[in-house]
Amino acid sequence: MSKSQLSIEPYKGVRDFYPEDMRVQNHIFNVWRKTLQSFGYEEYDASILEPTELYTSKTSEEIVNEQTYTFIDRGDRSVTLRPELTPTVARMVAGRKHELAYPLRWFSIPNLFRYERPQKGRLREFYQLNVDLFGDASSNADIEMIQISSKLLKNFGMKEEDFEIRISSRRLINAVMTEWYELDEEGSKKLQKLIDKKSKMSAEDFAVKAKEIAGDAFEFFSFDPHSEVYEEAMALLPIRDAKEELDGIIDDLKARGISNIVFDAELIRGFDYYTGTIFEVFDKHPENNRSLFGGGRYDKLLALFGSDEVAATGFGMGDAPILETLKTYNLIPTSVAKRSTTDVSVLAIDEESIPHAEKLADTLRESGINVALNTSLKKIGDQIKHAEKTGIQYIIAVGENEAKSGEYTLKNIVTGEKFDGRTEEIAGRINSQV
Amino acid sequence: MSKSQLSIEPYKGVRDFYPEDMRVQNHIFNVWRKTLQSFGYEEYDASILEPTELYTSKTSEEIVNEQTYTFIDRGDRSVTLRPELTPTVARMVAGRKHELAYPLRWFSIPNLFRYERPQKGRLREFYQLNVDLFGDASSNADIEMIQISSKLLKNFGMKEEDFEIRISSRRLINAVMTEWYELDEEGSKKLQKLIDKKSKMSAEDFAVKAKEIAGDAFEFFSFDPHSEVYEEAMALLPIRDAKEELDGIIDDLKARGISNIVFDAELIRGFDYYTGTIFEVFDKHPENNRSLFGGGRYDKLLALFGSDEVAATGFGMGDAPILETLKTYNLIPTSVAKRSTTDVSVLAIDEESIPHAEKLADTLRESGINVALNTSLKKIGDQIKHAEKTGIQYIIAVGENEAKSGEYTLKNIVTGEKFDGRTEEIAGRINSQV
Repeated sequence: MSKSQLSIEPYKGVRDFYPEDMRVQNHIFNVWRKTLQSFGYEEYDASILEPTELYTSKTSEEIVNEQTYTFIDRGDRSVTLRPELTPTVARMVAGRKHELAYPLRWFSIPNLFRYERPQKGRLREFYQLNVDLFGDASSNADIEMIQISSKLLKNFGMKEEDFEIRISSRRLINAVMTEWYELDEEGSKKLQKLIDKKSKMSAEDFAVKAKEIAGDAFEFFSFDPHSEVYEEAMALLPIRDAKEELDGIIDDLKARGISNIVFDAELIRGFDYYTGTIFEVFDKHPENNRSLFGGGRYDKLLALFGSDEVAATGFGMGDAPILETLKTYNLIPTSVAKRSTTDVSVLAIDEESIPHAEKLADTLRESGINVALNTSLKKIGDQIKHAEKTGIQYIIAVGENEAKSGEYTLKNIVTGEKFDGRTEEIAGRINSQV
Repeated sequence: MSKSQLSIEPYKGVRDFYPEDMRVQNHIFNVWRKTLQSFGYEEYDASILEPTELYTSKTSEEIVNEQTYTFIDRGDRSVTLRPELTPTVARMVAGRKHELAYPLRWFSIPNLFRYERPQKGRLREFYQLNVDLFGDASSNADIEMIQISSKLLKNFGMKEEDFEIRISSRRLINAVMTEWYELDEEGSKKLQKLIDKKSKMSAEDFAVKAKEIAGDAFEFFSFDPHSEVYEEAMALLPIRDAKEELDGIIDDLKARGISNIVFDAELIRGFDYYTGTIFEVFDKHPENNRSLFGGGRYDKLLALFGSDEVAATGFGMGDAPILETLKTYNLIPTSVAKRSTTDVSVLAIDEESIPHAEKLADTLRESGINVALNTSLKKIGDQIKHAEKTGIQYIIAVGENEAKSGEYTLKNIVTGEKFDGRTEEIAGRINSQV
């Protein structure tokens, strides 16, 4: 490669979206947008540039210190490329707290940035659906989050048995930490971090480390109703209250037809700001058995902006895990995977036919049809190959005969079907098929 | 403000998109997307992060040196937040040059970043429609660019007389520079830069400076056919050829019904990479008389990636100027400016009615209606105020009577109209109105 030649590679760990990738991406965005709007959520967004201080107080420390893109701008301000959207939405809601109407239902589809070692499903720039409901402290809000999560996956074509929703509660976890294990804040955080990493160590190793922090009382954490200590722990009011609230949510969801929900005492989730119900959705496919997305309640975040507490619950769903799942279940529609957004290619056979081909293309466009005009004057076979390669399903060749008669042949180059007609008939035919 | 309190302000020079702003933004994106798809263009995108070297060789020097966000990442790479998309699309096309089908019609709606002093219509992060047609060296491609530009503004609701399309040609300018003024590359660049800034100086000042560079021959640049030097200059073949090509394009566009096109000998446009036809579209409104957007041919850009030359023409249209124009002509539809994307708010009157209200909401959603459920149990008047404030047009209150009878009253809170019916009738009514 000569020294002056530029590289065709994108920056490390990010993606180019060629049209066939973009169609899939837009399919994901469309399902996200349509589902959220159907539940009365309104779209918002902000810049990817945020003051660094927005993240230093409440986001996971690991993320801020090791995983952000942070730099000093030409005006000596520290700027961070947003690694998550929750601090931004909290800032925006705090900024108009008294003008906004609650319950406030908002969603966004931001691109987010993390300086991580690139690996499958982990990119340096990715997109994430963010859903938030502000001003509803009741369990109705928690229920709605899980109902939407379930509906999202069903709208992508998944079935109830394909995924599992695991639920827990930070209120319950905190009550167990302070009331049962009698841990202080530091001990509590330490134990939660250990539980969060349980799946990455041996059972023995985990038991030893857990008992080091929490003592022998730790056995309770299974929440097994048959265990000796269960009744004793549940006799403690903060634990009983939190457990009953969580059981109520699970019962309500089952009553609303969501049967794939289970209590998971070991569910922690990384972010520090959760205060109540938390949940995580898992793909059950043997080849893609992994966490897809999750969320929870975070009632205290807005107070950081000098605002009163505002009840808040939400979740985030990244594009990379859902894309893997769609591939695993073969749920990307053919129209998205294989077909261009262009419906028809109008092929000019010779120089003289170009003005007529242009006119036909313009008229079809008026009927809402997406038309590419081919005025390359290449051999008709080459023009058809161009349409095939681009994923355009229909062609209409325009030559002297067509220009004179105003009669065209519409050909579906995927099925080989042909249809003869005048402009309006051709337009009607295409519109009835695509 | 206490020291620990976070600021609610966004980063300087960027925008927060609250739902009412986002609806306008999505309206602009939808018109862009729909228009481009109607001409057979396919959407693509890439990351906002690009290797800095992508910009150092061919973008305007002013932009790279003074106006980019450039920083060193944790892996010691120099990264730039993309200030324009053309180098990216050239990189992507060069990367798959032999797999792609030409003519290749591509568009994108990227966010771009420039470190500028924030002012009206100039932001540090903005969105820009980017349209490119590769592999067509004929004037058909230049004509299509201008035809699409005109259609875009008409699809926003503008009329032919509201705007003017100014056209010129780098081929013509270069021919004049070398053949008529006999300037070398440096002199040519200097003179073009001066012409580009003509509107910012006095006529006398400009004349003096121009003659310093180009000598007394400079008067030719008006291309006035009545001037003494016109015939003499047009006798030079490269000038005559380029002028005739440009005149042909103007004639073709007029034949296709685009009457608001004028040759502008003083049109230069900033970027260095243009090689042929260039154009710029101006708003003619007395209160918003300004350049809206523009583009041109850039046949040599792909060669930077070690590829052969690929014919290329394109344009970019930023969101801020078009938004100003839409405001000036009052062209933002009421449904976008004032109405939520949520069609109806279902109000639960009491605790017992919540399950029935939930069921009604779910059923309406199955009919494609966007429904927000209000389970706050606030006074019905407050629930209606919530819908008003959010911009939701319809409400349905659900209490004991509705739950028993399955009959509801749909109220339009903008017009006061009421409609009684069962679920299917209500759904039909809403779908026929929104």
